[in-house]
Amino acid sequence: MDFSETELLAAITRVFGGSGSRISVGPGDDAAVAAHGSGDLVLTTDALVEGVHFRRDVTTPRDLGYKAIAVNLSDVAAMAASPRYAVCALTLSEAVDAAWVMELAGGMRECCDEFAVSLVGGNLARGRDVTIAVTVTGEVVPGRAVRRDGARPGDHLVVTGSLGGAAAGLRLAEQRSWNDAERDALRRHVRPTPRVGEAGVLARHGVTSMIDVSDGLALDLSRVCAASDVGARLDVRRLPVHPAATSDEALRGGEDYELLATLPSHEAVAAARSELDDAFGVALAEIGVIIEEGFVALDERGDERPLEPEGWDHFR
Amino acid sequence: MDFSETELLAAITRVFGGSGSRISVGPGDDAAVAAHGSGDLVLTTDALVEGVHFRRDVTTPRDLGYKAIAVNLSDVAAMAASPRYAVCALTLSEAVDAAWVMELAGGMRECCDEFAVSLVGGNLARGRDVTIAVTVTGEVVPGRAVRRDGARPGDHLVVTGSLGGAAAGLRLAEQRSWNDAERDALRRHVRPTPRVGEAGVLARHGVTSMIDVSDGLALDLSRVCAASDVGARLDVRRLPVHPAATSDEALRGGEDYELLATLPSHEAVAAARSELDDAFGVALAEIGVIIEEGFVALDERGDERPLEPEGWDHFR
Repeated sequence: MDFSETELLAAITRVFGGSGSRISVGPGDDAAVAAHGSGDLVLTTDALVEGVHFRRDVTTPRDLGYKAIAVNLSDVAAMAASPRYAVCALTLSEAVDAAWVMELAGGMRECCDEFAVSLVGGNLARGRDVTIAVTVTGEVVPGRAVRRDGARPGDHLVVTGSLGGAAAGLRLAEQRSWNDAERDALRRHVRPTPRVGEAGVLARHGVTSMIDVSDGLALDLSRVCAASDVGARLDVRRLPVHPAATSDEALRGGEDYELLATLPSHEAVAAARSELDDAFGVALAEIGVIIEEGFVALDERGDERPLEPEGWDHFR
Repeated sequence: MDFSETELLAAITRVFGGSGSRISVGPGDDAAVAAHGSGDLVLTTDALVEGVHFRRDVTTPRDLGYKAIAVNLSDVAAMAASPRYAVCALTLSEAVDAAWVMELAGGMRECCDEFAVSLVGGNLARGRDVTIAVTVTGEVVPGRAVRRDGARPGDHLVVTGSLGGAAAGLRLAEQRSWNDAERDALRRHVRPTPRVGEAGVLARHGVTSMIDVSDGLALDLSRVCAASDVGARLDVRRLPVHPAATSDEALRGGEDYELLATLPSHEAVAAARSELDDAFGVALAEIGVIIEEGFVALDERGDERPLEPEGWDHFR
C-alpha cells in the first residue's frame, strides 16, 4: 500500500478533527473520552483479523475470544478508566463451525467476567476471513483520563511487568516442547493481561502520561514523545526483558500490553512501585527519562545512540 | 456453515445472558442500553464486509463511508435514542489506496455531521478484504428506550417511508440508464437515511415496540412478534411499495432502514402520521395489526395465508 499506518491515522484524524467541546480526547490516543451524562464515557475499538493477528491452526478460539476483549480493556486501562461495556462485530468464514464460535464467545465471556465488563451487544456477518472487532466503553471521573500528551522534561519513564514475552511466544509457538519461561511467553502471546487495576494505581501516584505497549516499546514511546512534544532517553540496560525474550524483542516486539507511563518524581516512582508490588505482585521498572528533545537510547555499554521508533506497523 | 444466523445469535446471547442490573437491554435488540452516569448509554455495532455488503467496483468509498455510519444510527434510532459518538475498526486490503480511504472517511464524516454525531476513535488493520466495523453510542432518558418486546394484541402496525427501494436499487445497479424512480431506488441502496428524528416522533406518540427494517419486513416483523410473544396480520395490499420495487422486494428486501413500529390506537397513528408529514415529509403507513398468535398475510385478493418469516440471513 502507498502509506504507513501512522500517516493514514494522522490523515483520518484530520478529517475528523475539530470535534465538539464535549470530547475531551478524540482520535489519536488509546481511547476516546467524551462527556456523557454526569461522567466521562471512554470508548475504544480494536479488531483481530485472521492471517494478520492470529492463525486458526495455532490459536484456540477460547484464547482468541479472551484476547479480543483483553486488548480493548488494555486501551481503556491506558486512559486510567474503568471498563464497563463491550460490543463485538464478528465476521465469520465458511471454515468455522458453531462450536468454534461458541468457544470464542466463551473466551470473551471469561475475560469480561474477570474484569467485571458486560458484553451488551454485537453483530454477525460472513466473509472470507474471520474478523473480531470489539468496542469497549469505560468510565472515568471527568477530567481525570490520562492522555499521551502530558509527559514533561525530567519525568521518570516507567513500565509495568516485563517486555518481549509476547513476541518470544509468537516465535516459540512452532516448537514441540517448552521450558517454564517459554511457556509463560506463549501464554503472554495468546492470553495477554490488561493492566486495569495497575493503571488505577499509577494514576493515583500522579502519572503525567500513559500508553499501553501494543506495537513495541520503541514505537509506543515515540508516540508519547510526539504527542507531548518532548524527547526521551531510554536506558536499554534497565529494560525488564522477559526471561524467554531477546533484548530486541523487549525493545520492538508488539502485544505485551504493559503500561508505559511517566511519573513526575523519584518519590512517586517508589510509592507506585511499592503499591503495585503489594496489590498485584507486578514490578515497575524505571527505564529512562523524558528530555527536551531527541530520541536516544543508552546501549549495553552505556553509549548514547539514536533510537529508531520502529515496531509493528500494519501497513509496512 | 452448520447454523443459521438466528440460531447462532440466540446461542451467543445465552452465553452472555444474566448480565448485571445496570443493563436495561442486552444482546438481542437493535442496540444495547446500559446505565452510565445519570443517563442511559446506548451502544450498537454493525460491520460492512467487502463481497458481502458491498463491491468496491460498484459502490464509491464516499457512499460506503456514509452507509457504514447510517446503518448504525438506524439501530440507535430504533431504540428511540439520540446518537452521540462513533468509533470505527477498519480492515484494509492491499487493493485500496490512501485516496480511497480518505473518501471513505469523508463519507463517514458527512453522515456524522448530518446527524450531529462525533466519530471519536478507531483502529486500522490489514486483511484480505475491506471490513468496516462501526460502533455508535447514544443517549436516552432512563427507562425510555423502545424495545422489540412491547407489542400487544390490538396494536396498530406502522412503517415509515417506503419499502423495497434498496433491494430494487441493488437489482438495478447494473443497468446503464435509470428513470427517476430507479435513480431514487439506487440512492436508497447506496446511501440509506436513518430515521433518527422520525423515531423521536413515534416515541412521543407512545410506540409500544420498534425495530429498523434492515433484513426485510417479513423477517424483522417476525422478530418483533417473537420478542413480544404475539402474532401479526400483515395487509400486503397496504405496503408502501417503492415505485421502482416489486411487492416481493417490499416484503422481503433488506436494507431499507425504515422504522417498523406498533402504536396502541388509531388516534396515535393519526397524530404521529400528521407530525411526521409536517416535520419530515415522511409518510407513515398502517400495514396491519398485532394479534394473539399466528403470523399471516392478507394477500392481493384479501385472502389470508401464512407469512413466511424469510429475508436476509447471513448464514443461509
